[in-house]
Amino acid sequence: MPQSPVAIVFDTFGTVVDWRSSLIADLSAYGAQRGVKADWPALVDAWRAAYQPSMQRVRSGELPWTRLDDLHRGSLDRLITEHGITGLTEEDKVHINLGWHRLNPWPDSVPGLTRLKSRFIIGPLSNGNVSLLLNMAKHAGIPWDMIFGSDLFGHFKPDPETYLGVANMLNVRPDQVMMAAAHNGDLAAARRCGLQTAFFPRPTEYGPHQVRDTKAEQDWDIVATDIQDMATKLGV
Amino acid sequence: MPQSPVAIVFDTFGTVVDWRSSLIADLSAYGAQRGVKADWPALVDAWRAAYQPSMQRVRSGELPWTRLDDLHRGSLDRLITEHGITGLTEEDKVHINLGWHRLNPWPDSVPGLTRLKSRFIIGPLSNGNVSLLLNMAKHAGIPWDMIFGSDLFGHFKPDPETYLGVANMLNVRPDQVMMAAAHNGDLAAARRCGLQTAFFPRPTEYGPHQVRDTKAEQDWDIVATDIQDMATKLGV
Repeated sequence: MPQSPVAIVFDTFGTVVDWRSSLIADLSAYGAQRGVKADWPALVDAWRAAYQPSMQRVRSGELPWTRLDDLHRGSLDRLITEHGITGLTEEDKVHINLGWHRLNPWPDSVPGLTRLKSRFIIGPLSNGNVSLLLNMAKHAGIPWDMIFGSDLFGHFKPDPETYLGVANMLNVRPDQVMMAAAHNGDLAAARRCGLQTAFFPRPTEYGPHQVRDTKAEQDWDIVATDIQDMATKLGV
Repeated sequence: MPQSPVAIVFDTFGTVVDWRSSLIADLSAYGAQRGVKADWPALVDAWRAAYQPSMQRVRSGELPWTRLDDLHRGSLDRLITEHGITGLTEEDKVHINLGWHRLNPWPDSVPGLTRLKSRFIIGPLSNGNVSLLLNMAKHAGIPWDMIFGSDLFGHFKPDPETYLGVANMLNVRPDQVMMAAAHNGDLAAARRCGLQTAFFPRPTEYGPHQVRDTKAEQDWDIVATDIQDMATKLGV
């Protein structure tokens, strides 16, 4: 590692929080309470599968800047129909869409981030919007110093405006920022912008459907087993 | 109070941190260490007197958007000359300018904010830039959930883009946000934008030079003695 970073920014969905298990549990309980029958795990997997294509419509310029909350809602409305789920009110749909604000952290996330916060500026650098990430932090007790939501930059990762936007906002050089993620592609884009990089795998992120990111695919500056181990490797 | 707010945003200089005493102590100690003689209290008071006029050049359109750190530096360079201070290197000037990142909180600020954080989203809504406010929070142990620096909006208070920008970023109505400040003018501007308001006085903010804001000048939604009392009045 060339030098100690000033700030460490974290991918969030999958890296800090376990979106799949959280959403399946949350929606299954809500469906039972509301008496709405559905294959909730299938809905969750389909919803996540719609994530990159929906953002690509913004990245390509087909859609103007749109918050992830609104992309999620558009995908949800389509999937409710496609999955034949009936009996949901508008209030139900709003509640379900905000499920992305109620995700739970992996067991090492909060203790590891708390250690890192003692020496570094820490924040999410996520495709989520500020309000989503802020509500998630309040729900899960994640001790961020600052929330780098995609709406601050008007761009989704891996657009360079996100990685370089953090450095600009912090008034530091790109190599004074470290990107941490369980996704090799995110780190590759950050490295192209000059950021330092840290990888740890989340091999159960996609449950039985995981097909990638089981290991580091480049010589990232730090390769760890989780955020606690990353803190240890950074000497905190 | 019409309803409980979702988020409470705080003016920072004077309201949360004691800029005058902090800067006088910081610069006096630094001057002694570096062997540079100056009337540091006079420099600090003149520097703060340059604050509003420097921002007015941006508000009026005379200057393009400029971070407060850079406005501070421009004022500092002029004042060093005017006050006949000699022997400062570029490194010294950078250090002195970052004195605004090293301000100390009033005694009630951190315990009061910690209480409020248990129920509300809390953040600074300040004319400071994100990096200034973030470094200040790390220095002073202020437990913000999110940093609403003026650079997020490209506007200084009391421009409406700041107050309304917070509500927009949080995806709530303006009346779901409360502005807290020791300055009646800040609250008046926030109220015109539809925000709730909380006032508490900081009668020693300007030391012997305080001439205003010793009491509430409108029927603000909350009038308290300090942030601890504000938390009590909000039932946390």
